[in-house]
Amino acid sequence: MRDPAALRHPAMDDLLSFPAQVQRWLDVEAALARACAAAGLVEAAQAEAVARACHVDLIDLHALDEAAATAATPVIPLLRQLTAAVPREARAAVHFGATSQDILDTALVLFLRDGLRVLVEELLGAGDRCAELAQDHRGTVMAGRTLLQPAVPVTFGLKAARWLAALARQLERLYGLGFHVQLGGAAGTLAAYGERGLEVTMRLAEELDLDVPALPWHAERDLLQEIAATLALVAGTCATMGHELVLLAQAEVGEVTDAGAGGSSAMPHKRNPVDATFAVAAGRSAAAAAAAVLTGDLHEHERSAGAWQAEWATVPRLVESTVVAAARARRALEGCRVDGARMRANLEEAGDQLAAEPLAVALVADLGREEAHALVAELAARAAATGAGLLDLAGETPAVSAVLTGEQLERLRDPRAHLGVTDALIDRALDRWHRVAVG
Amino acid sequence: MRDPAALRHPAMDDLLSFPAQVQRWLDVEAALARACAAAGLVEAAQAEAVARACHVDLIDLHALDEAAATAATPVIPLLRQLTAAVPREARAAVHFGATSQDILDTALVLFLRDGLRVLVEELLGAGDRCAELAQDHRGTVMAGRTLLQPAVPVTFGLKAARWLAALARQLERLYGLGFHVQLGGAAGTLAAYGERGLEVTMRLAEELDLDVPALPWHAERDLLQEIAATLALVAGTCATMGHELVLLAQAEVGEVTDAGAGGSSAMPHKRNPVDATFAVAAGRSAAAAAAAVLTGDLHEHERSAGAWQAEWATVPRLVESTVVAAARARRALEGCRVDGARMRANLEEAGDQLAAEPLAVALVADLGREEAHALVAELAARAAATGAGLLDLAGETPAVSAVLTGEQLERLRDPRAHLGVTDALIDRALDRWHRVAVG
Amino acid sequence: MRDPAALRHPAMDDLLSFPAQVQRWLDVEAALARACAAAGLVEAAQAEAVARACHVDLIDLHALDEAAATAATPVIPLLRQLTAAVPREARAAVHFGATSQDILDTALVLFLRDGLRVLVEELLGAGDRCAELAQDHRGTVMAGRTLLQPAVPVTFGLKAARWLAALARQLERLYGLGFHVQLGGAAGTLAAYGERGLEVTMRLAEELDLDVPALPWHAERDLLQEIAATLALVAGTCATMGHELVLLAQAEVGEVTDAGAGGSSAMPHKRNPVDATFAVAAGRSAAAAAAAVLTGDLHEHERSAGAWQAEWATVPRLVESTVVAAARARRALEGCRVDGARMRANLEEAGDQLAAEPLAVALVADLGREEAHALVAELAARAAATGAGLLDLAGETPAVSAVLTGEQLERLRDPRAHLGVTDALIDRALDRWHRVAVG
Amino acid sequence: MRDPAALRHPAMDDLLSFPAQVQRWLDVEAALARACAAAGLVEAAQAEAVARACHVDLIDLHALDEAAATAATPVIPLLRQLTAAVPREARAAVHFGATSQDILDTALVLFLRDGLRVLVEELLGAGDRCAELAQDHRGTVMAGRTLLQPAVPVTFGLKAARWLAALARQLERLYGLGFHVQLGGAAGTLAAYGERGLEVTMRLAEELDLDVPALPWHAERDLLQEIAATLALVAGTCATMGHELVLLAQAEVGEVTDAGAGGSSAMPHKRNPVDATFAVAAGRSAAAAAAAVLTGDLHEHERSAGAWQAEWATVPRLVESTVVAAARARRALEGCRVDGARMRANLEEAGDQLAAEPLAVALVADLGREEAHALVAELAARAAATGAGLLDLAGETPAVSAVLTGEQLERLRDPRAHLGVTDALIDRALDRWHRVAVG
Repeated sequence: MRDPAALRHPAMDDLLSFPAQVQRWLDVEAALARACAAAGLVEAAQAEAVARACHVDLIDLHALDEAAATAATPVIPLLRQLTAAVPREARAAVHFGATSQDILDTALVLFLRDGLRVLVEELLGAGDRCAELAQDHRGTVMAGRTLLQPAVPVTFGLKAARWLAALARQLERLYGLGFHVQLGGAAGTLAAYGERGLEVTMRLAEELDLDVPALPWHAERDLLQEIAATLALVAGTCATMGHELVLLAQAEVGEVTDAGAGGSSAMPHKRNPVDATFAVAAGRSAAAAAAAVLTGDLHEHERSAGAWQAEWATVPRLVESTVVAAARARRALEGCRVDGARMRANLEEAGDQLAAEPLAVALVADLGREEAHALVAELAARAAATGAGLLDLAGETPAVSAVLTGEQLERLRDPRAHLGVTDALIDRALDRWHRVAVG
Repeated sequence: MRDPAALRHPAMDDLLSFPAQVQRWLDVEAALARACAAAGLVEAAQAEAVARACHVDLIDLHALDEAAATAATPVIPLLRQLTAAVPREARAAVHFGATSQDILDTALVLFLRDGLRVLVEELLGAGDRCAELAQDHRGTVMAGRTLLQPAVPVTFGLKAARWLAALARQLERLYGLGFHVQLGGAAGTLAAYGERGLEVTMRLAEELDLDVPALPWHAERDLLQEIAATLALVAGTCATMGHELVLLAQAEVGEVTDAGAGGSSAMPHKRNPVDATFAVAAGRSAAAAAAAVLTGDLHEHERSAGAWQAEWATVPRLVESTVVAAARARRALEGCRVDGARMRANLEEAGDQLAAEPLAVALVADLGREEAHALVAELAARAAATGAGLLDLAGETPAVSAVLTGEQLERLRDPRAHLGVTDALIDRALDRWHRVAVG
Repeated sequence: MRDPAALRHPAMDDLLSFPAQVQRWLDVEAALARACAAAGLVEAAQAEAVARACHVDLIDLHALDEAAATAATPVIPLLRQLTAAVPREARAAVHFGATSQDILDTALVLFLRDGLRVLVEELLGAGDRCAELAQDHRGTVMAGRTLLQPAVPVTFGLKAARWLAALARQLERLYGLGFHVQLGGAAGTLAAYGERGLEVTMRLAEELDLDVPALPWHAERDLLQEIAATLALVAGTCATMGHELVLLAQAEVGEVTDAGAGGSSAMPHKRNPVDATFAVAAGRSAAAAAAAVLTGDLHEHERSAGAWQAEWATVPRLVESTVVAAARARRALEGCRVDGARMRANLEEAGDQLAAEPLAVALVADLGREEAHALVAELAARAAATGAGLLDLAGETPAVSAVLTGEQLERLRDPRAHLGVTDALIDRALDRWHRVAVG
Repeated sequence: MRDPAALRHPAMDDLLSFPAQVQRWLDVEAALARACAAAGLVEAAQAEAVARACHVDLIDLHALDEAAATAATPVIPLLRQLTAAVPREARAAVHFGATSQDILDTALVLFLRDGLRVLVEELLGAGDRCAELAQDHRGTVMAGRTLLQPAVPVTFGLKAARWLAALARQLERLYGLGFHVQLGGAAGTLAAYGERGLEVTMRLAEELDLDVPALPWHAERDLLQEIAATLALVAGTCATMGHELVLLAQAEVGEVTDAGAGGSSAMPHKRNPVDATFAVAAGRSAAAAAAAVLTGDLHEHERSAGAWQAEWATVPRLVESTVVAAARARRALEGCRVDGARMRANLEEAGDQLAAEPLAVALVADLGREEAHALVAELAARAAATGAGLLDLAGETPAVSAVLTGEQLERLRDPRAHLGVTDALIDRALDRWHRVAVG
């Protein structure tokens, strides 16, 4: 089945089309032929003849798909077609010394590299927007919320800076990933190449601009799992941003709105946070797919019977879902309008209850921790019950007024006075982003 | 992306094609119009006019797919096209009182019902083959293996009977599942139907031959999760059978071979257990997809922002993977040839070490449990170290010969004498299967 | 490690203590001895002597734990101690014909039955409170919310009724589960019992009041997975209720408050929805544990090397987490205070925008679906932009006033007039609950 | 509940005991007090008084556990006890400016660091043994197996080298992880420290020898998820080695045996691969726990209501399971005896069928790929059916004898002639290991 449109991405549609997949397999076959020629195992002319035949246009895709349904791997029927398309005298150079897994795994790595480029583009877009939001809303105070309850003041800029710092870490992880060629031959000894196995491996890697692993990794999948795990982390950040925007866009909160909000088939007035919603949906699907890769069956001996084949569908979809999550998070960020007035209003609605922590901090030196905490808790409860202001009640309380002047109490009213090192934190996030994103 | 051919199923390709999906949405719209007419909310002629327009041939699928990419749901752009295809005077009957989720969820249930029919067919085929194997190999002795080490004799018929019993339980679970219509309107009150909401629900269920839930289930997904969980169980049984066949087909074990074994792109001699392998691969992917459904985000309020949308792709794929696992397991079972001689030979190779448990049982009444166990363990270790027979050594051991005659010891050599109630167990499995499979 | 206190449950602490675990193993040994005696395989006096020794007080738990660290199963060292505690003449009746897995699996089933009883108690408490809320808040109107945006009016009673319907389904699932004895002997043939294997199985089941499976299930784990899956579903409902209460308790929403709200180490004013939070945390951990059971390794041959052993920790924890989720959800429900005035106020804040769907429904017969929807969407957008009332704007719009009288428009203002069959749905949920909960 | 003994590890029992957990919380409180003193926020004497009270011996653990059962976090009741243990004049320095999450998260990181040290030790042991096996069995030929069928010859040394390469990569990943202090105060602004928030953070990190993150990470969990994902990868390698040893230890394969093989409660002769089995069980549980962390709920706003609390139990257990998997894999490797003669015998049993790939490679230049492959496949099938040797049949086939001399055919019989660059690959793995393990 094809994914629903809302969970797809145009660039991934291209990369994941059947012709594109087959072309990648053929690209590896072509590169392998050349690598063998460079290593002196086949003739250059043979290799070029093979490479010339490695075009998806020469393949009967329908027949290939049909034959692949019952074959151990799709490379087996592909090779039949490919060999037929190669002049007889060059056929010895087809798939020389390789096994299907070499082709499928290496092509998967090519796909991963291409897919992660798309991902990086979307993340850069999302990050640039976060940087803008962090900068623009440095001083836009809002209620910090813990366990979804108003806690103390923060700024929207700081929230965006936290996302930005996470995105910077994700980019660094993505930049740090290796994309390793897989070439082992029938069972990982590269036997068909005689003494030249490592040379062919290196030349193949060179042809495809891939990394050379210490050893073939046909049965050790940690290199692949590392990529999967990284995508889970990336998807988590994208889904989190989406979810946060959904929460902030709640009508009762109203602190962000989605410029491109979507409709409903039943309710003409609805302004649904569609992009943020699909950032969550795609991001969570990506995390689940990554979990499937990490908990997949153990690979047996020199090639698995089940674990490997399960990766064929799971890994591409993991990339697709992560890219969609990133693209949707980016669009949600780009489309979001921040309502600073509403943030301020919500903060005021929470009232000076949010001064409870600074008030306790102000009292702690004189009253001691437990006493200060208990006193403020009691005042806060009384204030909540009676509708009175916490700081007003505090001012009338001898234990407080013995320690704090009225002026000091007044200062506690201003959320801007209780932002700590918010500005410095935002700067740290921006700095890091600029270093990473340029990189 | 489309799944690899080896992980697809023709009937699922049909059910999951985009036109088939859209037709199911339209089927629900048609049934809804008729249900509203039956409840007196729209005119019968209107409903029929709507129903006449509910054909995928009238839909521009490309435009629909494009519009769906940015819409909150694909039903929104579908309704634009559908309404345009309905005569003006009947348009009021389109999507009357419903919301997108009603259409998508109910259509998903229709898909589940169709998909599970395919699944049941494959399982019936697999089970019939297991029944045949259980019957035919009632007395085909082989080594039982625990922790992959020879334990005591069993028969291949008993192994097949255990699979059969599991398949019977799975079928009973599948037969016990309900397929519930979802109709709630904008937020689950069915408000647009006034007093007639329950009537419309029941009529819609009748039109589509679905069950009526106690309440709309737009935000409570346990009915769907129950189906997902059941599919995980089914997939587990299919993967287990596939895995077992892979293990038994190991060259060093060689107790089953796969008549339709597949080749390799590198090794001309390979006879790979391809069907069994893909039963494992698909079955494990299904379990992972089910886990994603069970651990998916919590649905919020009256419609979720993320959790619901993630189901759109995950649930259909779960069905697809389970059906593939069942079809592959069935083919692996149908294609497997049982090598009773090899089973016997492996049993003999393990030798009379497998008489250790019956020997200990025979001694326990006289020697006591720990002593009998310790004595036999010591004899077994000596036998393994020296290559002598365990029973020969036992015969030379006074503590044994004081208790068991030579004849009694000889009887321990025959695996057929140590099969307990194997026959009765096989009969129980066959009985249960015949009751369930007929049902 | 021991779970954090907030994620434990007193009854589960008892059931899961090491002495309790060992006692369950001994209970199975005692019952097995009696079953063997009843089947004439050992003498009654022997069986009684074994049963008398089956008390955890006679076991050196420290030594057992130490020996179990390197044994294949803890039953092996336990049997050494147990046998030593049995008079010599009765020792032959210890563990007669059984294997460790028989003891561990059957004891696990005993634990599951006990644990699920605790679970049912907590769910009954939660359901009774939901029933009360559904009844009491039948008419307490509030905003229905889809994608976390105001949709159309619902009542809090309906929301509670949806939870109640889910709880009723969960209880039915729990009531429907079987608890099956496992007895197979060394490899599932019950060989040591000769012809009496089935009789011993049935007598053992009788002793322990357990169900008799068609076949031993040592290697087919679907009976266990079915319980795990059911717990995942139950945990999902508990976590969903918790999450919903967290969302409704947001200060900006304020529709429920938690009477027993908890504090913060930093902020004296905080009233954190602690029970609801841990219902989410525990419920989600339970779902993850269930997923681990469903996606766990495939069991091989007659006893698995890895898959089975992984269940030893995962399954008990799954039960524990589910019970905690249920207990916390129950407490959160019992402690929640519903603020109907705030619900009404939030609804009014959303304003007559929530009349958009009924307005469109009212217009659709005359204007047609797309036109009515488009017109109302345009009016809603204008209303939102200008702060005007949607219905006021509608009244000034000729296309509307041509169809609806002012009185008809006025009626659209009243949320109570747009609750559809809410009352009937609540009754259905209450009915079902009363039938299930009594059962 | 406590894990079964077989799934625990002594060092983890110590690290995860309740007193050890509480002491880590107190260690963070002590370090925080000193950091605040260093930043001039409290007096040094106060800080030292706090630090002196930060000893678990001063805490009533039973009362703490009881209070923690209903508190939002265990730090809240801990602070009550701690404060009481601090002289009145120093109490203001207790928990200064921090929130519970700061303490719990930072303590978790301390635990992670300690736990990962244990893990590294076990992995170093496992790797050293792999290095030994790779070196010693460089030339020990055995059948390479793909899809669990004999493929072409490999050596056991190469298999061990592949594990070694994986272990080297895992160690590099572990060495590359950061252990970051978490300090944010009530909602991430560090407001209580005024301008000195970053200074306190850095001093706290210094006190505890932890890394300083760009920003507090209370709601962005990717740093934690990265560790979890890495543990999943490590656990996968450990489980894979265990599983491979289980497969190789199958009686019918018999290529390795476990010196410390364990017994059975039913079968005195059993030699179960116990360590390998528990490497699988623990490794797979670890992967499932990591998946739970990666797919856990999204953290909301400035502190989550559910997602965070679920980590409390899941993360420690993930570490525990991974350490157990590593320790068990190490013991399984240390205890395994390699039976080179049996490997050779199995290879000979597979016979010259394993020459199929080299034969096809030898023919391909002259016959072309498809023709060579088809011819050898036909010969291999004929050989299998008739029991004849593949190379004998080949020698009698004109199409072969026209290309290959009898001598050339004979050379194909020797598996040692078809090991390709096995030696070089082993060297690469050893090199890498020595560089990493020293590091």
